[in-house]
Amino acid sequence: MTLKIALLPGDGVGPEVLAQAVKCLEAVEETFNQRFIFKEAPVGAIAIDKKGTPLPDATLKLCKEADAVLFGAIGDPKYDNDPDAKVRPEQGLLQLRKELGLFANIRPIISHPTLLDKSPLKKKVINGTDFVIYRELTGGIYFGEKKLNEEGTKASDLCEYTEAEISRIAHLAFKAAKGRKKKLTLVDKANVLESSRLWRKVVKRIGESYPEVTLDFLFVDNAAMQIILDPKQFDVILTENMFGDIISDEGSVIGGSIGLLASASIGEENALFEPIHGSYPQAKGKNIANPIASILSAAMLLEHFGMAEEAWAIKKAVDKSLKKGIVTPDLRENSQYGTSQVGDFIAHNI
Amino acid sequence: MTLKIALLPGDGVGPEVLAQAVKCLEAVEETFNQRFIFKEAPVGAIAIDKKGTPLPDATLKLCKEADAVLFGAIGDPKYDNDPDAKVRPEQGLLQLRKELGLFANIRPIISHPTLLDKSPLKKKVINGTDFVIYRELTGGIYFGEKKLNEEGTKASDLCEYTEAEISRIAHLAFKAAKGRKKKLTLVDKANVLESSRLWRKVVKRIGESYPEVTLDFLFVDNAAMQIILDPKQFDVILTENMFGDIISDEGSVIGGSIGLLASASIGEENALFEPIHGSYPQAKGKNIANPIASILSAAMLLEHFGMAEEAWAIKKAVDKSLKKGIVTPDLRENSQYGTSQVGDFIAHNI
Ligand SMILES: CC(C)[C@H](C(=O)O)[C@@H](O)C(=O)O
Ligand SMILES: CC(C)[C@H](C(=O)O)[C@@H](O)C(=O)O
Repeated sequence: MTLKIALLPGDGVGPEVLAQAVKCLEAVEETFNQRFIFKEAPVGAIAIDKKGTPLPDATLKLCKEADAVLFGAIGDPKYDNDPDAKVRPEQGLLQLRKELGLFANIRPIISHPTLLDKSPLKKKVINGTDFVIYRELTGGIYFGEKKLNEEGTKASDLCEYTEAEISRIAHLAFKAAKGRKKKLTLVDKANVLESSRLWRKVVKRIGESYPEVTLDFLFVDNAAMQIILDPKQFDVILTENMFGDIISDEGSVIGGSIGLLASASIGEENALFEPIHGSYPQAKGKNIANPIASILSAAMLLEHFGMAEEAWAIKKAVDKSLKKGIVTPDLRENSQYGTSQVGDFIAHNI
Repeated sequence: MTLKIALLPGDGVGPEVLAQAVKCLEAVEETFNQRFIFKEAPVGAIAIDKKGTPLPDATLKLCKEADAVLFGAIGDPKYDNDPDAKVRPEQGLLQLRKELGLFANIRPIISHPTLLDKSPLKKKVINGTDFVIYRELTGGIYFGEKKLNEEGTKASDLCEYTEAEISRIAHLAFKAAKGRKKKLTLVDKANVLESSRLWRKVVKRIGESYPEVTLDFLFVDNAAMQIILDPKQFDVILTENMFGDIISDEGSVIGGSIGLLASASIGEENALFEPIHGSYPQAKGKNIANPIASILSAAMLLEHFGMAEEAWAIKKAVDKSLKKGIVTPDLRENSQYGTSQVGDFIAHNI
């Protein structure tokens, strides 16, 4: 199979970790006789610096023409504390999600046996955790109308959802649940929000076509508790954009390291794969950032295109690096292995 | 001092736990020669059943005339899964907050030494946790315009904030930080939301009048991680309504039991005190619900009116019940003590 892959390294540690994912994909090319055509383009703060916009037209065009996008990270602190900034790196990612129609963000949360000690949660609480979050990614308060009055004293954001937006991701989530532990939990705030009540109504109705899947509901505040009280109770969590942002970052702590967590963002015609962690600017250029999340994003990419064996080879190599302690210092104190050494080790073991 | 206290037991276990708080206040009356005039009124599902509305006029009137409101809990599962319900118990609480102008919800999060084992988090992570969340309570997406189109296929909620709304709670939070560890963390999503950017701007400016307080900012997704990765880093967290709902419930897990957590909701002229836990309908009438959160709400009430010694007496008595294991079964397996026995013990020790 030949795949055109757009590489968007982005900001902070994005370029460093993405380079390791590319190494692994190149190893897959050799070992499994596949072919990947890589093309790189700027996005985020670096694109603002170079082109004045976080998502240059050429970058968007490249992504649209590619079969898939492999994304690094986005964000730069120089924009965060400036409420008046006219342009922000994050807009690049949000616009990309919207333009590519990536309506479903899929984040698996698994507790790695070798890392149980790294988690702030007790072993008995997390051991055996295995769930996946389906987060709606192109609707809700992220994309609703934003207003600021002229005096700058009143601001608003609109959270809006349509039945169609809810329905398409709900079907994906139910299908996933069907192939897993057959449980789907909708996280919402239906006791307060009109949009959440629409979610509940639509998801309930769609659930009738998936009789083998048990459907239940959790208010988001309760979900924020349950995820750390008893993460093993979950199989597939379905939720809207903002709740998904919060809940999935919270869930990312369970496994002991956010440096291991990958995500896929899926649309009708496009797909983007990225680590959950952000641009981690303090680590930029230091060769200490954990490349595993980025490498596992590449594995999710392969899975998406049916290359199960290839994806499996990457995951096995990652497991080996974890078991052997060939990991960056975030996972093992005083580890001598840097971002690129870990990438090399994993690539060689594919 | 004579205080008029409106008692709103509400739904589920609300009446049972509130009764214990009242016992403790009566003990305070005797021991410290104070006088409390209690008057009770219905709210929530029970008020819907009796009066057709979750917040009857008479209840609201009683609350407005009282010096403070002591609240039980609200919510009934029969409304949760009915997206078409015309009236919901929660509206009673939301309307009450709005009508009484209770713009600041204050939730202390402390790890109890005797309960470190109950927490899903590791001892070394939580030991010494002591922070307080200031959640804006009468604005944001909770109270913004809600819409549902005629076909029932599109729904929206508006998240709106004004400078004045942000400013008044920010001052409270900065003052609290000044009297504590002198750190304030604003939790927002300023990289995406216009309303969050207004929060950041206003809070930054107000911070200039509190030079002794260190101000920092966290995106809400990162905050959801940090709260469980390293809760000791926090002193005062300030945030908007919805983020506060999620973050404070998440934080409630740290201490090992949500059954211990009280909250105060403060306005210019009114104040309401309630446990963080909900109506817990499964436990209703079984004499097993933990009354401590409700009892500590009463202690917060006393503190609010300057009765520091009286509040202290309640807290000491609660500590004693924890140390002696005179607690409900949620805290000690097979405990023989029920809601009212624990209430008796604490009241007797005041
Ligand atoms: C960078 C930011 C805009 C983004 C989001 O909030 O969606 C990030 O937190 C994520 O979860 O991918
Ligand atoms: C009952 C519900 C409406 C309420 C809220 O969301 O504010 C509750 O969760 C709380 O935090 O007090």
